[in-house]
Amino acid sequence: MSPNLRAFAVHADIALGASLPAVQQAPAELHRAMHYAVMGSGKRLRPILVYATGNSFGAPLPRLDAAAVAVEIIHAYSLVHDDLPAMDDDAIRRGRPTCHVEFGEAMAILAGDALQALAFEVLAHDETPGIDSKTRLEMLRVLANACGSQGMAGGQAFDLSAVGQQLTAAELERMHVHKTGALIRASVRLGALAAGCTDPAALDALERYGHCIGLAFQIRDDILDIEGHADQIGKTVGKDAAQSKPTYPAILGLQASKAMLDELTEEALKAIAPLGESAADLHDLARFIAERES
Amino acid sequence: MSPNLRAFAVHADIALGASLPAVQQAPAELHRAMHYAVMGSGKRLRPILVYATGNSFGAPLPRLDAAAVAVEIIHAYSLVHDDLPAMDDDAIRRGRPTCHVEFGEAMAILAGDALQALAFEVLAHDETPGIDSKTRLEMLRVLANACGSQGMAGGQAFDLSAVGQQLTAAELERMHVHKTGALIRASVRLGALAAGCTDPAALDALERYGHCIGLAFQIRDDILDIEGHADQIGKTVGKDAAQSKPTYPAILGLQASKAMLDELTEEALKAIAPLGESAADLHDLARFIAERES
Repeated sequence: MSPNLRAFAVHADIALGASLPAVQQAPAELHRAMHYAVMGSGKRLRPILVYATGNSFGAPLPRLDAAAVAVEIIHAYSLVHDDLPAMDDDAIRRGRPTCHVEFGEAMAILAGDALQALAFEVLAHDETPGIDSKTRLEMLRVLANACGSQGMAGGQAFDLSAVGQQLTAAELERMHVHKTGALIRASVRLGALAAGCTDPAALDALERYGHCIGLAFQIRDDILDIEGHADQIGKTVGKDAAQSKPTYPAILGLQASKAMLDELTEEALKAIAPLGESAADLHDLARFIAERES
Repeated sequence: MSPNLRAFAVHADIALGASLPAVQQAPAELHRAMHYAVMGSGKRLRPILVYATGNSFGAPLPRLDAAAVAVEIIHAYSLVHDDLPAMDDDAIRRGRPTCHVEFGEAMAILAGDALQALAFEVLAHDETPGIDSKTRLEMLRVLANACGSQGMAGGQAFDLSAVGQQLTAAELERMHVHKTGALIRASVRLGALAAGCTDPAALDALERYGHCIGLAFQIRDDILDIEGHADQIGKTVGKDAAQSKPTYPAILGLQASKAMLDELTEEALKAIAPLGESAADLHDLARFIAERES
């Protein structure tokens, strides 16, 4: 990851820490579970997207904090609920026990619920200068859409229905476009909105960029599950195949998946080419997503 | 319930039906679970509060729809998650199988998650004339606060920690003030905000009213669990005692609980007395909450 992107991740960690309720404050156990879910060793991809996009339109980082925090908190909540026994039943996440293993199922469900509310709270409460009320409302709409049944939660539902099914490539894409893609596209759009970008052409280009890197991220994930090293990816290699999960390599084959990853990355870069040198961080991020080893 | 309050409930049902995604639309199973959770036979207490409050300040009902829908959707999601096996493990709600019994645990978790997002979506998307952007943002803040760790989710966490504990009356009140009280107070405040009420004295009076009827509602619930009729309350009488749940009668005794219910109702009515005849529906609602048989 480039020094700029790494700096965005560090900035995100600080903003996240400042946005969570204090663990000493009652209900303390709930707050501990919320911290545990958020303050792990995540890649902070979504906040990085907010900062990189907003920054490319000249917004100072503090103006982007609320959006960056909100998208990462939503991501963290989704992982907590996704790991639950009734869902993916994962005991390990980022090398640590998952939230429900550490705090019990009931508290993990509540922590996820409270985190989703917190994301909207952070975005609605933000009063950093430079964003007018109409734009803040638009940002809340973008976030809510990305989380709901036409976004992330819908993608999880597609995923549930896919268990034991043979998906087509189009169905697999639909699942990912919702499950992870919606929040990734929202991160890009929130960064642009917070920066005051209202140019439809630029917003369309960023939407395209977000769409492509979202799918690219997933394909890279699927490839790493086959070719990655357990100590780098933080989970067991070959887990997807063992669980018969629908993946790009399983449906398209490994070589075709790699070719698709390359195409999507090129398409992402092409989409933001008109933004020129100011979008250098977004350029680096697309490359990072395609080439990452973890 | 008075004819006005019943009319508000009918209006709420129509607004709710219009706000949920179509069940034919993909992901259909998720949408079915969301409908199932919301379109039961709820009392619609929270939307009635929004309409009764807003209407007392002269707001036409359509201007109050988004807030009314949002609070009821939040309430519905909280019931779905509360009924889960890891939480209260309830198989019957309002005389029907609970959402996870009908749709499976994973889909119930997702339906709750998607409903929470939908509540914010409905409120953020609303464009009914008469509410400016600043007020809408304030309404979103009120809703988010009521849902999070300092509101409803926090109350659930207090409830979890209370299992097997001997609570004091103060601890029991803290739990209810968060678990059900936060959303009830928010319903009143959202109605007032949507109606353009900015008078701090009136908002304080309504806050007091909401606080009192929220607790009164809970005490009446606890009393009905002892004295109610199963066919009217829609669940087993004596369930709280059988599960050793902390209740007002268990902690204060039945007579003292009834006295407290009366005092809270009187305090609620006193709080809104300065609003005069225009607050007649709120007056009726406080009486209804204290006297209801189901």
